[in-house]
Amino acid sequence: MKIVIAPDSFKESLTALEAADAIETGFKKVFPHATYLKVPMADGGEGTVQSLIDATGGRLLHLDVTAPLGNQTAAFFGLSGDGKTAVIEMAAASGLHLVPPSQRNPLLTTSYGTGELIKAALDHKVEKIILGIGGSATNDGGVGMLQALGARFQDAYGQELAFGGAALAELTRIQLDKLDSRLQQVTIEVACDVDNPLCGEQGASATFGPQKGATAAMVQQLDQALAHFAKLAKQQLGLEIAELAGAGAAGGMGGGLQLLPNVQLKPGVQIVIEAAKLAQQLQDADLVITGEGRIDGQTVHGKTPIGVAKTAKQFNKPVIAICGCLRDDYDAVYQHGIDAVFPIISQLGSLANTLADGHKNLVSTAHNIARLYCLNRDGLNR
Amino acid sequence: MKIVIAPDSFKESLTALEAADAIETGFKKVFPHATYLKVPMADGGEGTVQSLIDATGGRLLHLDVTAPLGNQTAAFFGLSGDGKTAVIEMAAASGLHLVPPSQRNPLLTTSYGTGELIKAALDHKVEKIILGIGGSATNDGGVGMLQALGARFQDAYGQELAFGGAALAELTRIQLDKLDSRLQQVTIEVACDVDNPLCGEQGASATFGPQKGATAAMVQQLDQALAHFAKLAKQQLGLEIAELAGAGAAGGMGGGLQLLPNVQLKPGVQIVIEAAKLAQQLQDADLVITGEGRIDGQTVHGKTPIGVAKTAKQFNKPVIAICGCLRDDYDAVYQHGIDAVFPIISQLGSLANTLADGHKNLVSTAHNIARLYCLNRDGLNR
Repeated sequence: MKIVIAPDSFKESLTALEAADAIETGFKKVFPHATYLKVPMADGGEGTVQSLIDATGGRLLHLDVTAPLGNQTAAFFGLSGDGKTAVIEMAAASGLHLVPPSQRNPLLTTSYGTGELIKAALDHKVEKIILGIGGSATNDGGVGMLQALGARFQDAYGQELAFGGAALAELTRIQLDKLDSRLQQVTIEVACDVDNPLCGEQGASATFGPQKGATAAMVQQLDQALAHFAKLAKQQLGLEIAELAGAGAAGGMGGGLQLLPNVQLKPGVQIVIEAAKLAQQLQDADLVITGEGRIDGQTVHGKTPIGVAKTAKQFNKPVIAICGCLRDDYDAVYQHGIDAVFPIISQLGSLANTLADGHKNLVSTAHNIARLYCLNRDGLNR
Repeated sequence: MKIVIAPDSFKESLTALEAADAIETGFKKVFPHATYLKVPMADGGEGTVQSLIDATGGRLLHLDVTAPLGNQTAAFFGLSGDGKTAVIEMAAASGLHLVPPSQRNPLLTTSYGTGELIKAALDHKVEKIILGIGGSATNDGGVGMLQALGARFQDAYGQELAFGGAALAELTRIQLDKLDSRLQQVTIEVACDVDNPLCGEQGASATFGPQKGATAAMVQQLDQALAHFAKLAKQQLGLEIAELAGAGAAGGMGGGLQLLPNVQLKPGVQIVIEAAKLAQQLQDADLVITGEGRIDGQTVHGKTPIGVAKTAKQFNKPVIAICGCLRDDYDAVYQHGIDAVFPIISQLGSLANTLADGHKNLVSTAHNIARLYCLNRDGLNR
């Protein structure tokens, strides 16, 4: 019997690999001789680098980059076991958590550090870059990132634009001739689970600006600046980025990335599933276990357990999900390939204690799932 | 497929019948055409009357009896659907909850009301009385109960003893000739899950007296009074009650009951299992579901899920348990017939909200157990 264990992390409690280990421990008590394949998963959000490193036997690389407000910060990216793929979380360089709440101002924040991470990945001669763009502090249309990679954005006086979303209003000329030429040799897969356009009511500024510190007036200013950027991109580069689905992700990063060659926006979990070669691993599986810290009505919208379940169902494999908490509106998961789902909380307690009990409760739940799964295999009690 | 659902109550959340209904609801979503047999269970403690009424289609009868301190209180007992069995919880007449904390004093409290309930059951011409003796406020050796049924306990002056454990020290003469003669025609099964003797360090007074309000001095006084009672029972009636396992239950009620004919002390869950005819119901079952509000290391010591599981395992039936909370030390249940156990808490919340969510969470957990159970039956996803 082959059991594939492909959970996301249980946030604040277990990494995806730790979760997979716990599930394996529980199952092994019942099926000690089964073949277990652990594939730590993610959906392009926080934890994606760690999961893909764990899934491919890769490593973490550390470097200092430019933080959203221009200071230096310690950041990281991942390199897959075969060295061919780099995995970057934009939040590591340009994340909202890097800006103290009182200083959050998307007029000023830049995505420059994310560009530095991409540059560092190019230094490692990778063939593919996976870029997760969740959790950013920026609303600069990815222009900072592009600047770090050699693109030039000048104002009417021929001066390079300052950092931040507000400066885009001064943009007069975009030049890509100095863009890092190694970008021609790589593909960039961008984990993007929203389809917001760059501008307007559903655009980057209106939808995500407020959570980054934008007032109503700033939202309007930023929206106009991004529209101006899009207009020049169209005029000078022939690129239509204003209405592109996903262009509004990460403060317009989804749009700005279109100025680079070989960029694809894709659902995050799909990128991770491909990078981890999950489909190949699943083909001869007898049972698939997935899971995440929370499963609810949102889970069917691109979260890891559903991505895993849909892949498994291509091969008609049974899928069991395990979660930290299970919200009332979770029923939709049944229509998306999950056969049964179990929460792990064994008793009421503080959030801190419950998170600390994650390993123990996950082992216990997996153990009992295995015992129940085993019932019908043996016909009766073992 | 026949599924027997035999849970105890989920205390403060669901009666045993409500729990069985919820489990059935969850299972029916997956197996709508299965045959379901719901057998509400209990272990002789609180809820036993309701469970056996529900299991047999019986009814509840209300009457006023003597409370532990001599005042009147509203009490109840159950009559089985066939009218042949009465079910009495001693706590309904003589329970600790009937005495305000400031007035708890086992020197004074009497089990007289429990005797009145037995007498009322005799009025209904039952063949069997099931008596649960948990939660009592008394330490009177069951003498109050015996007085209500016609037994006489006199002091050196020929006066009937006053109520309470202290008065037993004055006992000189026990007379059973006026005992209600209908007691000859019934059997009394006493749900007793402790094996404490009447007196001494492990006796009624030392073990259970303090929780009923006894000080250290009172414990000594009560212990001596019970020993005196046992001595006279031996001298005058030839009954050895001092060392009998279980005689110390319910303030010596386990001992005092020996003065009646046809009395058996038995594990509570065994009595309920026999009264509900669970074994017959289980013989052609394909699956057995049990459960209780809490499952932990104590569950193997005579709690309902284990009683159900042991009965099921006589016929090699698979047993799944569902519980409100699952404590760390629960593993022992696997050695006692439970194949798998699942807690139902779906997310952290207040105790009140969690108890209020009991029905919803139990339906959900049963549904997912059924979905997982179904996996191997169909081979794959349904």
